[in-house]
Amino acid sequence: MENCIFCKIANGEIPSGTIEETDLFRVVLDVAPATRGHALILPKAHYANLYELPEEMAGEAMKLAKRIALRMKERLGCDGVNLIQNNEEAAGQTVFHFHIHLIPRYKEDGQKIGWKPGEPTSQELDAIKTLLT
Amino acid sequence: MENCIFCKIANGEIPSGTIEETDLFRVVLDVAPATRGHALILPKAHYANLYELPEEMAGEAMKLAKRIALRMKERLGCDGVNLIQNNEEAAGQTVFHFHIHLIPRYKEDGQKIGWKPGEPTSQELDAIKTLLT
Repeated sequence: MENCIFCKIANGEIPSGTIEETDLFRVVLDVAPATRGHALILPKAHYANLYELPEEMAGEAMKLAKRIALRMKERLGCDGVNLIQNNEEAAGQTVFHFHIHLIPRYKEDGQKIGWKPGEPTSQELDAIKTLLT
Repeated sequence: MENCIFCKIANGEIPSGTIEETDLFRVVLDVAPATRGHALILPKAHYANLYELPEEMAGEAMKLAKRIALRMKERLGCDGVNLIQNNEEAAGQTVFHFHIHLIPRYKEDGQKIGWKPGEPTSQELDAIKTLLT
């Protein structure tokens, strides 16, 4: 898509720290990384988010994520990996071209990635279950 | 695996708020949700994390995640969805049975899910690229 920076990176029109490339995807280092080795999986074709990404592509993206997570573990000596994929502004998406963040984690890396847990009643959970089933 | 609570939930030995079930996976509501509708995708077989999960299963998990994210969008009226998958304690994993969090997001839901960006030099990025390529 014109004026989409991730289209340009994924298709090699803008140079990037590419660590893997397949027919469908490019994996690049994030230039503002949460931690050492933070990478992004980008489809070469433009899809705004997971809702738009075809199911087969979603599957291929996750297979690739698994391979890269293992590679991080083996080569960076990290103590863990977060996989994060945000959809829409309310979820923290800032570039509207589907991407998966792979964030190597290190003990005492100073990042806190999590949420405050809620305490719904069983009635509230039942109501949501009915909506989502 | 014996004494794994997610094995018991995924296989129906412990009751749960199941919103979807396939041959390979169960999708349940998180009982301590970040937001209304927070769900977990659990494989029925035991794999500790994404490193252990077979590639084909990783692909199927993400296809399912896409379908559930769309369903959240359609039925909950959420403003976004976070997909989060944590591996190892340093990454915030607390139950050591692979799972994907799907967190519907709502404007002003009070959650902050993100990280502090770093500012590596191009030399530092090049060194990591060499390691990970």
